[in-house]
Amino acid sequence: MTTDHFTIVAAAQAVPQHVVTNQALTDLMPTSDEWIRQRTGIQTRHVATTETTTSLCVSVGQQLLAQTDVRADQIDLIVVATMSPDYLTPATATQVQAALRATNAVAFDINVACAGFVFGMELVHRYLQSGQTALLIGGETLSRLVDWHDRRTAVLFGDGAGGVLIQNQPDSSSGWLGQHFASFGEQGRYLTAGQFQQKTPWQSASASPQWAFQMDGRRVYNFATKQVPQSLQAALASAQLAPSDIDLYILHQANARIIASVGRKLKLTAAQLPMNIAKYGNTAAASEPILLAELVASGQLKRGMRLAFAGFGGGLSVGTAIINY
Amino acid sequence: MTTDHFTIVAAAQAVPQHVVTNQALTDLMPTSDEWIRQRTGIQTRHVATTETTTSLCVSVGQQLLAQTDVRADQIDLIVVATMSPDYLTPATATQVQAALRATNAVAFDINVACAGFVFGMELVHRYLQSGQTALLIGGETLSRLVDWHDRRTAVLFGDGAGGVLIQNQPDSSSGWLGQHFASFGEQGRYLTAGQFQQKTPWQSASASPQWAFQMDGRRVYNFATKQVPQSLQAALASAQLAPSDIDLYILHQANARIIASVGRKLKLTAAQLPMNIAKYGNTAAASEPILLAELVASGQLKRGMRLAFAGFGGGLSVGTAIINY
Repeated sequence: MTTDHFTIVAAAQAVPQHVVTNQALTDLMPTSDEWIRQRTGIQTRHVATTETTTSLCVSVGQQLLAQTDVRADQIDLIVVATMSPDYLTPATATQVQAALRATNAVAFDINVACAGFVFGMELVHRYLQSGQTALLIGGETLSRLVDWHDRRTAVLFGDGAGGVLIQNQPDSSSGWLGQHFASFGEQGRYLTAGQFQQKTPWQSASASPQWAFQMDGRRVYNFATKQVPQSLQAALASAQLAPSDIDLYILHQANARIIASVGRKLKLTAAQLPMNIAKYGNTAAASEPILLAELVASGQLKRGMRLAFAGFGGGLSVGTAIINY
Repeated sequence: MTTDHFTIVAAAQAVPQHVVTNQALTDLMPTSDEWIRQRTGIQTRHVATTETTTSLCVSVGQQLLAQTDVRADQIDLIVVATMSPDYLTPATATQVQAALRATNAVAFDINVACAGFVFGMELVHRYLQSGQTALLIGGETLSRLVDWHDRRTAVLFGDGAGGVLIQNQPDSSSGWLGQHFASFGEQGRYLTAGQFQQKTPWQSASASPQWAFQMDGRRVYNFATKQVPQSLQAALASAQLAPSDIDLYILHQANARIIASVGRKLKLTAAQLPMNIAKYGNTAAASEPILLAELVASGQLKRGMRLAFAGFGGGLSVGTAIINY
C-alpha cells in the first residue's frame, strides 16, 4: 500500500582523511599492490584516525541540509544503516538527529551489513507519507573490525559514510519503480564480524570470539555473482524494464570482479556500471551512497535517469531498488 | 498509505535457565535485596550461561510456528530488535531465518534499544501487505553489557527474548488503531552501552571505551515519566481513544517506579498495568513481548481487547502503538 513517490533530493559523502595505499599494507602483511589490484580492483582505502561512524554520518547529514532548502526541523525520519556503530546504544541515527537538531525526526538504525543502504531505501519508501522528508545514511568504520595482519580480508575494507535526503513528492517526475529483496541466513556463516565476548560472573569467558572479519571468499563470490543478477532481474521484472532501460547501476562496491561478472550476466555497458572501489575499498552500507554522491557531483547523474541500486553481503542478504532519479 | 490490518496471531518468550536473585548480587557488590526491590521492583533476572541472543530468538520463532498453522516458508518478513546481537554480521534476524528454514522471508535487525519492539511493530505494520506474515522478535543478552560490580546499573538488566507472529488479515476484527514515535538524540548521552574500541595500525587504542552500561538514572527517570505519558496521550489522540478505553498497557519493563508514575499520570488502574519486572528485570527490546506472551498464556489477554504498547530508553527514544488484539 505504499506510493511510488520517492525523490532523492540530494546526496553526500564523507570519508576519513587518512588514505592507506596497497603499498602501505605490504608493511603489515605479505601481500602486494599488484595482487590486491588484480583480485579486488582496490588501490586505496580511507581509514578512520580521529573520525568515528557517528562523525562521518553527521558530516553527511550536515552536507545534505546545506545542499537543500530543507530545515533540520522539517526532517521526519532518520535511518542509519551500519554494521559498525560506535555504541550499541544510543543508535547512530539518534546521534545524527542530535547533531543536526532535527528535533521532529524519528531516528533508528538498521543492520543488514553491506545490503543496509538498499534495504534502507525500501524502508524509507514504505515510511514516507506525502510531503515527508527522510535522511538515509550508510556509515561504517570497518577498520576496527579488521585483523590488519590477515591478508585475505584486511585488503578489502574501508571506512566512510554516504547518504541521501529523500522526499515523498507527489508532483515530482522522480519515483520508485520496483524492488526485490531476499535473505539467505543459511549462508550467514560465510561472512561474519564483530562476535562479542560472552562473559558474566556465571559464565566463563568464551574462547576468543571472532571479532575480525571472517570470510569464505569463494562462497561469497559465488553468492554475489549468482544472486545479484537474479535480484536485479526480479526487480527489473517488477518494474517492467529490461537491463538496457537502466542508465546507471549503483552496485555495492565489494569487489571489481563481482561487479564485472554482474555486468557480463546482464550484458551491461561499462557506462552503465560506474565504480569507485579503487579509491575506497568495500565500505559496506556506505558504498552505494558514496558512489551516488560522486556521480551527482561529477554531473554524470542527471535528473530523469533510471537507476538500479543493488546491495549484497553479510546475512547473506541481497536487495535491489529501481528508481527514476 | 498503510492499512490498519494488523493481527498478532501468536506470542512467545524464551529466557535463559539461570536465575540470579538480588541476594546473589550482594556477593558481587555492596547492595541489598531490599534496596533493589524498593528502587526498581526487581527480585530476580535471568542471565545467559549457554544461551545467546540468537538461540533465544530462535526459540521464540520456533514456538511461534508451533503455536500456529503457519509454515516457515509462508513467513514474508523477520525483524529482530536488539541492542545486544551476537555478531555485528550476520544480523540476528537472518540467523533466525536460517534456523526456521523461513526461506522466503526477508530478514534484518533494527536497533532502537529498549524501544526496539514498539518501533518494530510500526515497521511491520508498514511493511505487511494483505495476507502477509511477519515475525517480530525482541531479543537481548544484556548481561554482557553490564559491569557486574557497578551497583547502579548491574541490578537493573536481564536477558531474554520475546516475539510475535503478525499477519495482515483484511477480514480480522483485530487492527492497528494509532501510534506515536519520537527521538531525543540530544539526551542520548544519559544512557550508553557497547562502545567499541577504536584500534588500527594508524590509530592508538582509545582510552578504555565504555563497554558497560552507563546511565544517569535521574535523567532517564525524568525522561520516561514525562515522555511516555505524552507519547501514550498522542497515540490515544490519533486513535480517538481515552486512557480508560485501553484494556491493557504493555509498557517496557524498565523500572516499577516508572511504570507506576505513568499509571498515575494517566489515572490507570492496577488491572490495566500488568508488570513482570520482578522476575526478569529490564530486558530492553524483549520486555514487552515477554509480558505479552505471559498475558496470553495466563488467559488475562483476550481477543477484542485494546492494547497500548509503549517502549522507551536508549537514544533516548519513545514510541507507542495501539492495537485491537
